[in-house]
Amino acid sequence: MQRGKFITFEGGEGVGKTTQIRLLTERLAARGINCIKTREPGGSPGGEAVRHVLLSGAAEKLGIGPRGEAILFAAARADHVDTKIRPALDRGQWVLCDRFMDSTRIYQGEHTDVPQGLVDILERIAIDGLRPDLTFVLDLRAEIGMNRANTRRTKGEIADRFEREDLSIHKNRRNAFLQLARQDPARCKVIDASQTVDEISFDIWQIVERELLLKEQGQTALLQNEKEA
Amino acid sequence: MQRGKFITFEGGEGVGKTTQIRLLTERLAARGINCIKTREPGGSPGGEAVRHVLLSGAAEKLGIGPRGEAILFAAARADHVDTKIRPALDRGQWVLCDRFMDSTRIYQGEHTDVPQGLVDILERIAIDGLRPDLTFVLDLRAEIGMNRANTRRTKGEIADRFEREDLSIHKNRRNAFLQLARQDPARCKVIDASQTVDEISFDIWQIVERELLLKEQGQTALLQNEKEA
Repeated sequence: MQRGKFITFEGGEGVGKTTQIRLLTERLAARGINCIKTREPGGSPGGEAVRHVLLSGAAEKLGIGPRGEAILFAAARADHVDTKIRPALDRGQWVLCDRFMDSTRIYQGEHTDVPQGLVDILERIAIDGLRPDLTFVLDLRAEIGMNRANTRRTKGEIADRFEREDLSIHKNRRNAFLQLARQDPARCKVIDASQTVDEISFDIWQIVERELLLKEQGQTALLQNEKEA
Repeated sequence: MQRGKFITFEGGEGVGKTTQIRLLTERLAARGINCIKTREPGGSPGGEAVRHVLLSGAAEKLGIGPRGEAILFAAARADHVDTKIRPALDRGQWVLCDRFMDSTRIYQGEHTDVPQGLVDILERIAIDGLRPDLTFVLDLRAEIGMNRANTRRTKGEIADRFEREDLSIHKNRRNAFLQLARQDPARCKVIDASQTVDEISFDIWQIVERELLLKEQGQTALLQNEKEA
């Protein structure tokens, strides 16, 4: 059985990651590919427990320092990778994940009191060799993303800790995502998220077809030819 | 102001660590030295929250894997070091800690599914350069220690996860503590915990005087002489 593919979705608040993950799941299902959707932080029961501590503000109340917090995030990710993502890929399922290591780089990179060396080591520990096959960076001007996130909240959602922050932070974050994408262009594809939902979904699908499905078919055909030769 | 000293107490179940920490605190107080007592896992509010997840069996129920668990222990320790131990030492207090990095080495070393390389990296991350000035390994035949722990429980305490294990595991653990002590004799002092409480306390005090108090006095006297010369 062929191993599944691991696709992550990155970008600021309100860029439409959840919608695009759902649409890609549907397109893949139409091709007979079984997907699971998951998210970070959280994603597994152990990871969700830690997510709750980290995002509810309990971490602040408990006085957990920035190092302790960074290590807790790594524990949540290691659990997510070990108990959910890797087993699914091994079963041949594709995994679509809302945020992964790139978000951690961006968000923890903002805290200058966590040394970059520690952030790098924790990433290596947490992902344990599991890199995404493809990462979509949904890019949107920070003002538009924040407006969308605000609209969503008026429908009853509560702002989490990261959503309560300043516009300037969101602008810096957007630039940091774009810079990360430039450093690893083979894996990271920047998508213009100011387009309509259908246009974004189409762009994503084109890339999934070209980078994952056609390459795989090519390899299978190659193997087939070798067998027949 | 002089930095405080950091002393850790290690050894199996029922060897009398809690009692000896209390007695050493009293002896130091009589010398005018202010101590804090603390313990691992836990010790700080954030660390206690993680301790609860790890020891209550919640980690098992949540299906947290051995890697996730090892990283959670590291997060608890980093929090304990950053928010409690290091600030106390900086204030000039001495810190007496019930279990520290040696227990982690022993307990996690038993799980062959956590690579030794990961255990080592997590130790470095968690202690962040903070090594104990002195470590007492309270050594007792495993049978005696387990009997003591059992007696204590009949008084109403509930056995935690580590106390529910087999005698053979406790024997291996004792040997592992002794081996660790042999590898680092300058820091680790093995104490015969089959003696009476007073005898054990006397042995510990002799070593604290020789290794920490007299050396310090020697240094102070040296500085004094240099000034006077």
